[in-house]
Amino acid sequence: MNEHIPPDFRVPGFLAAGLAAGIKKTGVKDFALLYSQVPAAATGVFTMNRVKAAPVLLSRERVKSGKGRAILVNSGCANACTGQKGIRDGQRLSRQIASALKIDPREVFLASTGVIGKPLPLETMEKRIPLLVASLSSGGLADAALAIMTTDTKPKGAVVRGRVNGKEVTLAGIAKGAGMISPKMATLLVFVLTDTAVSSAALRKALKDGVQESFNRITVDGDMSTNDTLLILANGKAGNGRVLPGTPGFKKFSILLRDLLSALAKKTVADGEGVTKVVRVLVERARTASEAEKVARAVANSPLVKTAFFGEDANWGRILCAAGYSGAPIDPEKVDIFFDDVQVVRRGQGAGPEKEEPATAIMKKGEYTVRLDLHRGAQKAFLYTTDFSFDYVKINASYRS
Amino acid sequence: MNEHIPPDFRVPGFLAAGLAAGIKKTGVKDFALLYSQVPAAATGVFTMNRVKAAPVLLSRERVKSGKGRAILVNSGCANACTGQKGIRDGQRLSRQIASALKIDPREVFLASTGVIGKPLPLETMEKRIPLLVASLSSGGLADAALAIMTTDTKPKGAVVRGRVNGKEVTLAGIAKGAGMISPKMATLLVFVLTDTAVSSAALRKALKDGVQESFNRITVDGDMSTNDTLLILANGKAGNGRVLPGTPGFKKFSILLRDLLSALAKKTVADGEGVTKVVRVLVERARTASEAEKVARAVANSPLVKTAFFGEDANWGRILCAAGYSGAPIDPEKVDIFFDDVQVVRRGQGAGPEKEEPATAIMKKGEYTVRLDLHRGAQKAFLYTTDFSFDYVKINASYRS
Repeated sequence: MNEHIPPDFRVPGFLAAGLAAGIKKTGVKDFALLYSQVPAAATGVFTMNRVKAAPVLLSRERVKSGKGRAILVNSGCANACTGQKGIRDGQRLSRQIASALKIDPREVFLASTGVIGKPLPLETMEKRIPLLVASLSSGGLADAALAIMTTDTKPKGAVVRGRVNGKEVTLAGIAKGAGMISPKMATLLVFVLTDTAVSSAALRKALKDGVQESFNRITVDGDMSTNDTLLILANGKAGNGRVLPGTPGFKKFSILLRDLLSALAKKTVADGEGVTKVVRVLVERARTASEAEKVARAVANSPLVKTAFFGEDANWGRILCAAGYSGAPIDPEKVDIFFDDVQVVRRGQGAGPEKEEPATAIMKKGEYTVRLDLHRGAQKAFLYTTDFSFDYVKINASYRS
Repeated sequence: MNEHIPPDFRVPGFLAAGLAAGIKKTGVKDFALLYSQVPAAATGVFTMNRVKAAPVLLSRERVKSGKGRAILVNSGCANACTGQKGIRDGQRLSRQIASALKIDPREVFLASTGVIGKPLPLETMEKRIPLLVASLSSGGLADAALAIMTTDTKPKGAVVRGRVNGKEVTLAGIAKGAGMISPKMATLLVFVLTDTAVSSAALRKALKDGVQESFNRITVDGDMSTNDTLLILANGKAGNGRVLPGTPGFKKFSILLRDLLSALAKKTVADGEGVTKVVRVLVERARTASEAEKVARAVANSPLVKTAFFGEDANWGRILCAAGYSGAPIDPEKVDIFFDDVQVVRRGQGAGPEKEEPATAIMKKGEYTVRLDLHRGAQKAFLYTTDFSFDYVKINASYRS
């Protein structure tokens, strides 16, 4: 077991499994199954890339019903840019899983991650389906978290518990990220299981809000993948009064879900490819939220800023410069910049050479905040970003080999 | 002398100089002056960053007159984010140069490049102005090309000659680039001298068109600097019939200028930070030019695509993926992708494993074209981009130290 997987990592009414099916040549776990023992409400969000992998196309269609029972995931092959064959392969796997679990194929969701443009090794996978189903257990989520990893260095799991409509409920999630983490979710697989009784409509709304405050706030390299998938199943086993939109119970459930997603998002960004720093870019006192977001994204995605984070170099000029080309109509001569509490820029100019040392000390930390005060209004936005390291280049230059 | 500086690198009626003034601690050349012996037409284009360095603010204002005589350039300090003091320092240097050359301070343009946020070492620079002026010579352009370098590894110069309105004319240019090369020109200093007789209006129009086809078509890291400056002086010494907009002579002059700027732009991108490959991203058969450009920019700026270029990995999935998130409404199932002549994607899917080897062979070259055929219309766009290497991170992680 791993410190990144919480203890007692299970949700009533759900089983999970993860094993090595031989999809990856390295012999590590690469095939996972999540399963609700009873019918469950379901919803999901998917990549906005025009290029959508076959499992995304299938899952997106099926989740429209608002319900589902199983999630079949593989790493090692994205099943993207595989045309009609990719769709047929996905349908075939769905039928086999459905038949083994005695559910409807339309209750099966699929997700894949790995190299783009290669077909799934279908026979290899089919051969392992009986073992995968036989391995299902209430404690299997940790194995599933391992099986969905690609260049992740650690499995990522989180759990939150709380009272909703009179009952104790559990929400647990696993995530994989690392490469291509970006604005608007990217090669990110996230699966959340909960025993909360909640209507499809409430689940959809809570997920939409929660993603906005978690996975849409992280960025590693600005790329957006073909396979992003976030799915949530809610099976009602907790026996709470059913959560409906706009009720006090909905608010409580939404906060629990947001907290879970935020915890997973932070773990994901911290495990980004070659990451040595996690930096929160906070833009305050913008005239509009969209203006704040533009500035935050320009700073968080600038390769020059990110290499300076890696080099622990308090090169605030690059930060101000990125804000300047963000497209937001900022007034550079009003901007203040802080590294945590240390002000390095006052009204568009260096706050003094005596700030170099304390600012550099902050940059040596693994996690800190870069705050830009635009002095234009009352709106703000934040993003979690990372540094750009030698290892980022190394991992991505040789990913396929 | 250097292979990157052409032989006989001079323009009638212009003098130039470049020397080590001690602005950089390393003792290399860092101070340059270009000077027209007679009044000259002048125009320029500047950074679109909201954060504009003091020399940009001064030069942009002065060039509105359509004329000028001298360009004073320093490396080692950007004089950006230096507030009113930066402006006053620039004005003071202008007065001193003007007095030494016996011209009007408003005929002096300034450009600076280097670290943001530090004031110019004014005394150090002032002390060297007499020597800089005394060093002016018709063969001094090569020294000036050296003096404007920052992380460039080579001085960059180009010259073109041709007949315009009955006379042989010369256009010569020097450029510095390397860091922050990006869409819409970025920390790029480019200075062009010509003896062509040309009206201010014609010069402005020819420059605008020429930049669009050269420096606006290169990208290294997507950043845009505070100091971008491209200036051109035309002193009429060739004695040709004056070039006016919309005439046959204008067309000839425009082509010469475009060719010069293209040559400088290609040298600049090839000398980008840590660059080992120059890749032309060509997008064809788009419905609109702006759609073609969106796709080209997404591919050319994707860190995952650029690290694959560095790794010589024919990972076309990343290219198609970047096209998919470009914002252009492409149909992924219609897209073809080629590495030079080798088709790697046919209608959104891999063109076959037998293409891997020839595609990889092309990626081992220093320069090649990645072509995307969208099958949507008749418009196209191209960009020169580069790979993302270990050295890019190394150079930028430690630039200030």
